[in-house]
Amino acid sequence: MAVSGCVFCAIVRGQAEASTVHEDDSVVAFMDLRPVTPGHLLVVPKAHAVGLEDLEEALGARLWTVAQRLARALRRSPLRCDGVNLFLADGEAAFQEVFHVHLHVVPRFVGDGFRIDANWQVRERGELDKSAAAVRCGLLALTSRQS
Amino acid sequence: MAVSGCVFCAIVRGQAEASTVHEDDSVVAFMDLRPVTPGHLLVVPKAHAVGLEDLEEALGARLWTVAQRLARALRRSPLRCDGVNLFLADGEAAFQEVFHVHLHVVPRFVGDGFRIDANWQVRERGELDKSAAAVRCGLLALTSRQS
Repeated sequence: MAVSGCVFCAIVRGQAEASTVHEDDSVVAFMDLRPVTPGHLLVVPKAHAVGLEDLEEALGARLWTVAQRLARALRRSPLRCDGVNLFLADGEAAFQEVFHVHLHVVPRFVGDGFRIDANWQVRERGELDKSAAAVRCGLLALTSRQS
Repeated sequence: MAVSGCVFCAIVRGQAEASTVHEDDSVVAFMDLRPVTPGHLLVVPKAHAVGLEDLEEALGARLWTVAQRLARALRRSPLRCDGVNLFLADGEAAFQEVFHVHLHVVPRFVGDGFRIDANWQVRERGELDKSAAAVRCGLLALTSRQS
């Protein structure tokens, strides 16, 4: 189950150092080594999965539930936390750096230096409808493949 | 259940326009009006919840499952998608703008203009352990309050 050379598998197996805050049968959560803000956590499935493609749905849902609890815990902790971001990077193009799926839980406060830049332009309904049709096409491909 | 003046409640009730790609008993997914990239989706619970504090855990898990499926659908769609980000903003300090909880599903490709800026500096183990202790403190507060 553990993948050789995978740092998160090593943490799961207790073979690499981590500052852990939660562990259960299927999920472990620990501090990010390069925290965007103090309290920045990673929630990781024990079973190795690269990303959203090979992560079992039930395990993904469990990942989420632990992340939601940790978000609520951050707001009740002594750490500065006026808001929380959950963030997942699936694939190198989406900024994934460790190829064992992980969900970031980031406590936020005004002026914390975290910034997102993008083109937030409002789009025409016709363009959005076209995108929606393309997504439905993908959903159909997903369902066909599974059946 | 619907909150007056909430644009996502209006979409859920069919009283506001949306380019919808998925609807079930508890969750709806539609195109973001200001897509970061073509295919940028929002997954939203039908029942109004502001954020992670008042979102029922089971409903949160359902939100995640739908988002995971949509991420996989995007990769099978005609849209450009070499990676996917899942992103949730809980609270104004975390960039939440619509106060009905929503999970972003963003198709990504190299050069798409989406950028994150932060201080990614590696921290000492002692500092991380201190943060972990603070998070455990928050988990304890959460558990005590619930029991």
